[in-house]
Amino acid sequence: MMDRDQLISFRRDLHAHAEPGFLEYRTAGRIEAALAGLPVTIRSGSQVQDLSGVVNYPDPATRDHWAQLAIAGGADPERTAYFVRHGTALVAEIAGNRPGPVWAIRTDIDALPIREADDDRHGPARDGYHSTTGAMHACGHDCHATIGVGLLHRLSDQDFPGTLRVFFQPAEEGVRGAQTMIDAGVLEGVDRMLGVHVAGGKPTSAIVGSVVGGMATRKLAVTFRGVAAHASGSPQDGRNALLAAASASLSIMSLPRFSGTDTRLNVGTLHAGDNVNIVPALAEMTCEARATDDEVIEDLTARVLQVIAGTADAYRVEQQAVITGRAVTISPDEALVDKIIAAAGQLDGVPEIQRHSPQGGSDDVNLMIRGVQAAGGQGAYINVGANSPAPHHNPYFSPDENVIFTAVDLLESVLRNG
Amino acid sequence: MMDRDQLISFRRDLHAHAEPGFLEYRTAGRIEAALAGLPVTIRSGSQVQDLSGVVNYPDPATRDHWAQLAIAGGADPERTAYFVRHGTALVAEIAGNRPGPVWAIRTDIDALPIREADDDRHGPARDGYHSTTGAMHACGHDCHATIGVGLLHRLSDQDFPGTLRVFFQPAEEGVRGAQTMIDAGVLEGVDRMLGVHVAGGKPTSAIVGSVVGGMATRKLAVTFRGVAAHASGSPQDGRNALLAAASASLSIMSLPRFSGTDTRLNVGTLHAGDNVNIVPALAEMTCEARATDDEVIEDLTARVLQVIAGTADAYRVEQQAVITGRAVTISPDEALVDKIIAAAGQLDGVPEIQRHSPQGGSDDVNLMIRGVQAAGGQGAYINVGANSPAPHHNPYFSPDENVIFTAVDLLESVLRNG
Amino acid sequence: MMDRDQLISFRRDLHAHAEPGFLEYRTAGRIEAALAGLPVTIRSGSQVQDLSGVVNYPDPATRDHWAQLAIAGGADPERTAYFVRHGTALVAEIAGNRPGPVWAIRTDIDALPIREADDDRHGPARDGYHSTTGAMHACGHDCHATIGVGLLHRLSDQDFPGTLRVFFQPAEEGVRGAQTMIDAGVLEGVDRMLGVHVAGGKPTSAIVGSVVGGMATRKLAVTFRGVAAHASGSPQDGRNALLAAASASLSIMSLPRFSGTDTRLNVGTLHAGDNVNIVPALAEMTCEARATDDEVIEDLTARVLQVIAGTADAYRVEQQAVITGRAVTISPDEALVDKIIAAAGQLDGVPEIQRHSPQGGSDDVNLMIRGVQAAGGQGAYINVGANSPAPHHNPYFSPDENVIFTAVDLLESVLRNG
Amino acid sequence: MMDRDQLISFRRDLHAHAEPGFLEYRTAGRIEAALAGLPVTIRSGSQVQDLSGVVNYPDPATRDHWAQLAIAGGADPERTAYFVRHGTALVAEIAGNRPGPVWAIRTDIDALPIREADDDRHGPARDGYHSTTGAMHACGHDCHATIGVGLLHRLSDQDFPGTLRVFFQPAEEGVRGAQTMIDAGVLEGVDRMLGVHVAGGKPTSAIVGSVVGGMATRKLAVTFRGVAAHASGSPQDGRNALLAAASASLSIMSLPRFSGTDTRLNVGTLHAGDNVNIVPALAEMTCEARATDDEVIEDLTARVLQVIAGTADAYRVEQQAVITGRAVTISPDEALVDKIIAAAGQLDGVPEIQRHSPQGGSDDVNLMIRGVQAAGGQGAYINVGANSPAPHHNPYFSPDENVIFTAVDLLESVLRNG
Repeated sequence: MMDRDQLISFRRDLHAHAEPGFLEYRTAGRIEAALAGLPVTIRSGSQVQDLSGVVNYPDPATRDHWAQLAIAGGADPERTAYFVRHGTALVAEIAGNRPGPVWAIRTDIDALPIREADDDRHGPARDGYHSTTGAMHACGHDCHATIGVGLLHRLSDQDFPGTLRVFFQPAEEGVRGAQTMIDAGVLEGVDRMLGVHVAGGKPTSAIVGSVVGGMATRKLAVTFRGVAAHASGSPQDGRNALLAAASASLSIMSLPRFSGTDTRLNVGTLHAGDNVNIVPALAEMTCEARATDDEVIEDLTARVLQVIAGTADAYRVEQQAVITGRAVTISPDEALVDKIIAAAGQLDGVPEIQRHSPQGGSDDVNLMIRGVQAAGGQGAYINVGANSPAPHHNPYFSPDENVIFTAVDLLESVLRNG
Repeated sequence: MMDRDQLISFRRDLHAHAEPGFLEYRTAGRIEAALAGLPVTIRSGSQVQDLSGVVNYPDPATRDHWAQLAIAGGADPERTAYFVRHGTALVAEIAGNRPGPVWAIRTDIDALPIREADDDRHGPARDGYHSTTGAMHACGHDCHATIGVGLLHRLSDQDFPGTLRVFFQPAEEGVRGAQTMIDAGVLEGVDRMLGVHVAGGKPTSAIVGSVVGGMATRKLAVTFRGVAAHASGSPQDGRNALLAAASASLSIMSLPRFSGTDTRLNVGTLHAGDNVNIVPALAEMTCEARATDDEVIEDLTARVLQVIAGTADAYRVEQQAVITGRAVTISPDEALVDKIIAAAGQLDGVPEIQRHSPQGGSDDVNLMIRGVQAAGGQGAYINVGANSPAPHHNPYFSPDENVIFTAVDLLESVLRNG
Repeated sequence: MMDRDQLISFRRDLHAHAEPGFLEYRTAGRIEAALAGLPVTIRSGSQVQDLSGVVNYPDPATRDHWAQLAIAGGADPERTAYFVRHGTALVAEIAGNRPGPVWAIRTDIDALPIREADDDRHGPARDGYHSTTGAMHACGHDCHATIGVGLLHRLSDQDFPGTLRVFFQPAEEGVRGAQTMIDAGVLEGVDRMLGVHVAGGKPTSAIVGSVVGGMATRKLAVTFRGVAAHASGSPQDGRNALLAAASASLSIMSLPRFSGTDTRLNVGTLHAGDNVNIVPALAEMTCEARATDDEVIEDLTARVLQVIAGTADAYRVEQQAVITGRAVTISPDEALVDKIIAAAGQLDGVPEIQRHSPQGGSDDVNLMIRGVQAAGGQGAYINVGANSPAPHHNPYFSPDENVIFTAVDLLESVLRNG
Repeated sequence: MMDRDQLISFRRDLHAHAEPGFLEYRTAGRIEAALAGLPVTIRSGSQVQDLSGVVNYPDPATRDHWAQLAIAGGADPERTAYFVRHGTALVAEIAGNRPGPVWAIRTDIDALPIREADDDRHGPARDGYHSTTGAMHACGHDCHATIGVGLLHRLSDQDFPGTLRVFFQPAEEGVRGAQTMIDAGVLEGVDRMLGVHVAGGKPTSAIVGSVVGGMATRKLAVTFRGVAAHASGSPQDGRNALLAAASASLSIMSLPRFSGTDTRLNVGTLHAGDNVNIVPALAEMTCEARATDDEVIEDLTARVLQVIAGTADAYRVEQQAVITGRAVTISPDEALVDKIIAAAGQLDGVPEIQRHSPQGGSDDVNLMIRGVQAAGGQGAYINVGANSPAPHHNPYFSPDENVIFTAVDLLESVLRNG
């Protein structure tokens, strides 16, 4: 069984080699290795991940780049090639020694495309484990993966009722990975679905029984295709994709507020045109809609799509808009929250216990929870405080590593008590 | 035969009672009266004007307003009622005493919706004949009507070859009236079609054989219909016609320049919304496109219509766009220009003769010229200098009245010489 | 003392002669008359209303129009002239026969610029008292004025502790009138400030102790002034006010949502341009911002103003933006709400009592409540259900008149109990 | 003296190793080498090029990339390092054996950032000299450089009156390089300034005495800097650079047409934002204005800059707009055109001689011609037909190499005749 120091080393190793969504080659390999010898069944790649519905999957050059980085970082070339071919999701299952429910816990494993701070103000830099890959674990998924690994070690005595599946999920950022695991059937038979997330803004080891609400979201990748033309010689022959995207951006952002529902809209990126003197023929845009209501998000997304289609028409350009990520709101089962709160009450060193806390952003584990609930099961999404000096998604984000052990303790207690 | 003083009085009377397009009730009556006793056949109203294709024809209240003004200004109530019912176009035809071609001359009779200057800097105000109707002859159509009347008097001896038709055309402003007369068949049998226009920017009595080029144009009236909603209580239930119109305005104005063709675009008016706290359900817009090429104007107009349709779609509102006016470019027949130049050369007091001059704006007599040319006839569009202290369409526009007699002299000479 | 039938007649008379904000000439006269003979001190016009800060006050022609309508509707010409000169606000004060707090109740008296339904589906039309003035009491202010009058009659025995002031407030729509009364000092000495409003969407006589929250708002009137130019002859000489307004409209509507605060934005009206072929030199726009937070509304309004200024600059036009109305949120005093709830509990025929209900829109009585609270007093804003078949601000709005008596009963009880 | 085959080889070598503006390291070295042994003085780098005013000069990584490519392509590492440090401009001067004027001929040497066609439809690909650098001589500057070299060889007998300077100019694309050479004083003492350009759309060896008109232009690089924020967590803390750029793009493109002057506007590129769920903090945009009038281009550029400044203000973001390239119109000296036409008339194999032809786009040699004219000298800009199967700036552009020799013959004749 990995001890505290080993888990911290494990987490720091993942941290130093942070990998973005769908490219967690080295990370997946390390998790497999860390579970070696445990009474655990590991399924991986296409067994637990259906990539056929993924839009904008990393292209071969990008995959190759991260595979080389992984190998340079010590990853096994053969396993790396396997993950490149089949995907990086893992499901580790351990059976308890007596009957009981099937639990699943989602721990996500991907990092963000953020360059990590490397100066002395930043703990990981001072201690020499900051990432140099160009990606950064600025949302604590390195801790999450370590929690999953730690919990499996802790329960390796199999002294608990039922079964535990840990979902090591790729590509939570962009809310893309959960659906690929759902599509591969990982929810089958699951009775209780848990998410767990570190909360940088809460005191270390503070516990939230479940986040609630949150924002349903859709992420869109949009392409406008026009016709290039010399901007001086024959501007009338051009069909201006840049202007279409500019106009669509303004129109999307001016969609109405919804009375009674909190909504968000963002055009996050826009890249258009090749040359100052050419009518731009191509514009690529990403945008997102959010709503605190699962019906409103459908309505709002439909409006965004209609803006895109109508504007393309107005500018006589072609458009394609695809949904690259989605999440729903969360409404946990209170019976399950009861168990979590009860377990939390038995832990030492927990400064604060909250039954509910609003879910700040969007998370695709909600899709898993919703899926299990739809099949008659229960779900909840635990938060554990980690007291980071900087907010999530910031180059100075750095959770207190004690969060890992509080989370493992809590989950162990929940599982042991069934 | 009306003498010089009578013609000047006639023009000043029209000037003082200026009437806008399709509402020239008093003007038409005065012209009829001025031709009484001449060997002239007058056709009027629906005989020479098909109003069925007119969009945005003045509504009953407006017609009633101008009819009452006309009668208050001395118009015969019965004739006024006739013009209200049947239209204000007149065609006066006089036959020469020997065979020859059928000539037509277009003289337009409508005024602009401009309030005329009434201070002492302005000649008509000093001399007491400025308009107080709210409309103003700021483009010289009062002179044109007088030229038509004067020419018919001058040729009342019938000593010329062929036949002369004078078209007293309503609603040239907005390029709306010519088509109504064409649709009624007034061009039938015409061999030679002439336009004549005073040129405020040229020295008095300077003569241009024909303007050339000009700008083809389309005027559009656009309506966007959405759904009103309380802007605070349920903004999501609204469909915002104001925003659709705003976005369409920007997109129209950003349509490309055309290499090799001079183009223009204008969104001239926009009226939207009822109340600060209601999502605007209605927006009304007028816009125009122009081009120095008769194919490009079709292309450009199609693009404007596509912007309107696509933008309405983007904003989920209904739209209707109708063409309310149109004009084409002009390419005169040089054989006919030869005759005009020759006649001009014989006149006294002509400071300057130009064969061609670019047509500054858009004029729907071009449709008549184009129609006659299409049937094998000839056309040209004479300009005569009038040395106005202020430009056309300005509240201080005031042509030198000598322009009337130079124009009559010139046309008489052209007609007498066949 | 006016009885039930008299009060209903009084309300229907106001209803039939609905008058918009600042133009309540006949209404004010009727209220004065209805209070004649009571032991009430009436202050009116400039005694209780400082109009010096009002932007876009009705112009002389409009004032004249409504004065004539008032007189035609039976108003006293002299009193009408007085209200035209000095304003239409009234404060009626009655002293109780023993010491106690100074109460103020705001009842607003203006109507909306909505044409009232006149078909048989509409009660007031069936009963012959629908408005034909072009304005409509579609928000129940006719009932409010009647409640004020009824309450003064009810308390004319002066058997209550303290003093009661009823504020008959003009121009609540557009949140414009309350400030004018505050500026004239009407809040001086007030200890307890109450608003009262009919709630068309609640069962008749249901009582809400106080609305809470609501939306702070600012209404803006914006003018863009550019330079006209012939759209074909010299478009480059124009400075396009219409485009500036169109661009500003889109930019205003695309201002960000605020996390944690509900906001609203609306560009309600836009009027620009004179003629299809002139570069538009003038654009007039009204817009509003709202927020459920009194600091955010300042921030949001500043952003709207910055969009207007920056966009005007971008288009090289002049701009002027003035705030024409404002309201704040409401946070009632619970001690006062206790009294209201207690009084409500003693009434018969009250189907439902709620302590709080969210304030749907914006109301400038909040400024009065805020003012009294700032001086150490208390405030609350009562709602009474009126079960209208159509929503507020709709041509078919029609409150159950029983609401008047429930409100009078409730207020009487509150006042009598001190 | 290089013979025809050597010149063709020289041109094809440049073609195969095409280098973009300011990065013509190998090209400059090859030109130097090709002039070795001639009685020619060569000045290079900072002697003839002042780079201090250049905006957006290639960054060190880009310079390094092209330097390595140059060396890999056989360039001398030392000379390459020299050009990297000092610039790639060359001026080769040869003195005639008798007194006469100082002539200067501009031949530009840079390629475009276009990937050249590599299939069999394309001559250079069939013959194995298509570029594989990622840049392409798609505007014939490889021919121009060869013309300059060929002419210096031809005149190496020094049997001509006066002096000849050939300006091998970098970075004509983007109209950036001419100014750097002017700033270094290369025009000093020049009496007659010639440009020469291949004309892919004209029959091989057809000669135009001088292009005329053309479009003055300004190229701009614009940066909008806002503030990033989580698009869901705190959108109100963001300042949206993407929206500012989108709005500015629409406003720039909707700037008015100019009556009497042909204008162009283009927003060529726009790159904004990092992530779909972040309020975009940075937007980079390139745009250009053009006009057939050197005063209007100043006016139009000022309007573009004002749109950018005003829009940035409206969106509360910072902006920086720098002019990265400029060109003026051309008005050649007819005495000089006379000489060219006379020389053309003496050549064999010239299918067509035109005195003037409109300059299609923008070229910064006009700045040199204007500079020489301003100092009392003369200028003209020769075109020679090259019959390309595809237009300029197209991946299949391919001039008939005979154009090189016609141009050399023509220029030799002009120079020999003084």
